[in-house]
Amino acid sequence: MQKRPRIVIIGAGFGGLYAARTLEQKAVDVLLIDRQNYHTFTPLLYQVATAGLEPEEIGYPVRGIFRAKSNIAFLMGEVIGVNTAEKYVEVITSERTRHEHYDYLIVAAGSVTNDFNLPTLARDSFELKTLPDAIALRNHILRSFETAAWTDDEDYRRALITLVVVGGGATGLETAGALVELFKNVLSKEYPFLRDITPRVVLVEATDRLLIPYPKSLQAAALRQLKSLGVEVILGSPVKATAPDHVTLSDDRVIPTYTLIWAAGVKASPMGALLDLPLNRGGRVPVTATLEAAPLDGVYVIGDMAYLEDASGHPYPMLIPVAKQQGILAAKNILRRIEGRNQEAFRYADRGIMATIGRSRAVAWIFNKVELTGYLAWLSWLGLHLIALLGFRNRLNVFINWVWNYFTYDHSVRLIVEVPDETGGIPAMVMDEPETDLITR
Amino acid sequence: MQKRPRIVIIGAGFGGLYAARTLEQKAVDVLLIDRQNYHTFTPLLYQVATAGLEPEEIGYPVRGIFRAKSNIAFLMGEVIGVNTAEKYVEVITSERTRHEHYDYLIVAAGSVTNDFNLPTLARDSFELKTLPDAIALRNHILRSFETAAWTDDEDYRRALITLVVVGGGATGLETAGALVELFKNVLSKEYPFLRDITPRVVLVEATDRLLIPYPKSLQAAALRQLKSLGVEVILGSPVKATAPDHVTLSDDRVIPTYTLIWAAGVKASPMGALLDLPLNRGGRVPVTATLEAAPLDGVYVIGDMAYLEDASGHPYPMLIPVAKQQGILAAKNILRRIEGRNQEAFRYADRGIMATIGRSRAVAWIFNKVELTGYLAWLSWLGLHLIALLGFRNRLNVFINWVWNYFTYDHSVRLIVEVPDETGGIPAMVMDEPETDLITR
Repeated sequence: MQKRPRIVIIGAGFGGLYAARTLEQKAVDVLLIDRQNYHTFTPLLYQVATAGLEPEEIGYPVRGIFRAKSNIAFLMGEVIGVNTAEKYVEVITSERTRHEHYDYLIVAAGSVTNDFNLPTLARDSFELKTLPDAIALRNHILRSFETAAWTDDEDYRRALITLVVVGGGATGLETAGALVELFKNVLSKEYPFLRDITPRVVLVEATDRLLIPYPKSLQAAALRQLKSLGVEVILGSPVKATAPDHVTLSDDRVIPTYTLIWAAGVKASPMGALLDLPLNRGGRVPVTATLEAAPLDGVYVIGDMAYLEDASGHPYPMLIPVAKQQGILAAKNILRRIEGRNQEAFRYADRGIMATIGRSRAVAWIFNKVELTGYLAWLSWLGLHLIALLGFRNRLNVFINWVWNYFTYDHSVRLIVEVPDETGGIPAMVMDEPETDLITR
Repeated sequence: MQKRPRIVIIGAGFGGLYAARTLEQKAVDVLLIDRQNYHTFTPLLYQVATAGLEPEEIGYPVRGIFRAKSNIAFLMGEVIGVNTAEKYVEVITSERTRHEHYDYLIVAAGSVTNDFNLPTLARDSFELKTLPDAIALRNHILRSFETAAWTDDEDYRRALITLVVVGGGATGLETAGALVELFKNVLSKEYPFLRDITPRVVLVEATDRLLIPYPKSLQAAALRQLKSLGVEVILGSPVKATAPDHVTLSDDRVIPTYTLIWAAGVKASPMGALLDLPLNRGGRVPVTATLEAAPLDGVYVIGDMAYLEDASGHPYPMLIPVAKQQGILAAKNILRRIEGRNQEAFRYADRGIMATIGRSRAVAWIFNKVELTGYLAWLSWLGLHLIALLGFRNRLNVFINWVWNYFTYDHSVRLIVEVPDETGGIPAMVMDEPETDLITR
């Protein structure tokens, strides 16, 4: 049979995307599946949420990333099943349910917010995993300030401009810092009532430290920077309960707020369960050093969904560079298999981690050796992100706009815009998602 | 009494916005009310709908337009009543219903889509009046192509890539032209299936001519340009009936389509009825030459809502320049009244009208004398729009980005992003809009 091997990749996040790019122009057919038609540059989601960037700046249509003549096909749909015996993936699309056959499968569906079994979280909090999340949070913050500007109820006003961020990791810190700067640099100039009352940003962390994977000195630096920015930091205080208008900490302290941002951690996508394998804690799929989900044949799991320990027995963290490198390796290993060569074991090239605090400070831990703080760290962060953004086919215009927006807080992104789901009378044949009638505003 | 006169302006469209700007830094207090927190540059809505521009490029937060220390206050809410006896406006905000007192009132709520009494239009068509409209249409078009890329049903595919635009005015022409260019310049490169089948754009007009207010020669030029672009033009064919998957014309011709874009005309906002005055046909409020809604005292109506005839008995058209000039005059007349001076009658400085067809053609009728067609007309259009865009506080960065996007069809705007209404557990006290739970995808 002369038919080319077919590789199905589930997920166009960093893992799936880099796997696909590795397979471009090789003698294989690739089907890349994602629920959205674009890849999201997630590190900057908090910028969209804090009205610092336009949503489209960090969304990249998948079809635009791969040239139309390439061997990468894209299918927009949701995977609801994997039949590993007959080797096909079950996908719900706008039209129907499809069975997509694979010779090799790369599962890269990423992670979801970890709610730590707090049942009210979905109702009472905002997460920051997707672009719609970020836009919804932005809309909400702006609406809250509009309401606060006109209410006569002092307690209500105070609660409306109190924002609580839960989670002392990079996401939490970056979001908290960006919120303070939104208030100080932009909203304070546009809302006269803010001359008399200051918005609060409260960062809540369950453990006694911020940035757990970082060395102590950097943790201390981060704490200092946050406080000097004006963020209130509460350590050692898990969230006990949530409500629509307040949050309760484990010591029974109550913070009245209408904006609870949950950045407390992620867990593996539930898609792991579709493989019918025992899962590790956190729902991650254990993989071999070659990233295969043994005993399945030809199935690779990468990124946040995969569980693999390094030489010292520590599981690889759920980070973007890990996903990228695993995506590339899984793709290369599949090519090696096709060519009858030996596969390679995963070795993580750890270049370090970094977190920003506001627009001019950061902490960075480079190559597990060099500690950077302050403005120098921030410049490194800026440079790295720009390089990453430019990684996608010379996006010079995005670069210019992003840099401009970043430094000037262009007004245009402070729109409250909600866009309803399909309401244009698409028959049930087309859309599997229920149609909803939203009030336009 | 030393209290400054209070002027309430309903609507932050072109009329209300220019009225407010005229009153900035004068010895009055202004309250500007709008349902959205931003002003929309509506001439470019069709660009957002055809994935040519990012939504935020044409939305301007009202608070950003007026400096915080100015005498212009902004209230985000919906006006549901006007008590002209006691001189206050009833406004629903996110918090409650407010009574906002006025000494003078400018009603500038604009227009709504004219459905010509077709009851199925809301279900079966897309309109283009607001930014959410444009984003929803963009999402829909992209989803349709994603579905068309994978279906095996030939008739279904053909209907998915057949787009029908109803309305032979400037909006219809501009939208139809931009759609063809989206297909030719962008989508054809990203969807391999488009090598074998060509998307259709059909422009349907009820009368026998396009661009009714234009001279015959320009009407003919527009028709030629549309056809050379590849738009199918059907004249003299009102829409008889709509359905979710097709549209029926008056001659019983049926066009299978899932995208019916209704650009067939507008009628005055229903807000006119709140004034308890007899309305003219189309629901417009008759005003005096000084733009007052006699016999009410101190109430001015401007823009699309107002009915006023020129010297030859023709009603002023529902166009942006008319709204702008009326907004400025109404504001000046109010200031004159306050100062005890005579008011002025409205005289429309008609600089002409123009419509673009695609990205390099246009027709323009300048100062009712000069006819321009083709590339020169398009350059004029470009220049005018850029000047208009720059009119708002030196928006150089928007200019750069807009020009760049315009010429390069930057990929980033081709995202399908729906953002649900508030779902973050805001109590009923805060939001009057019902909360909906959307499936995220």
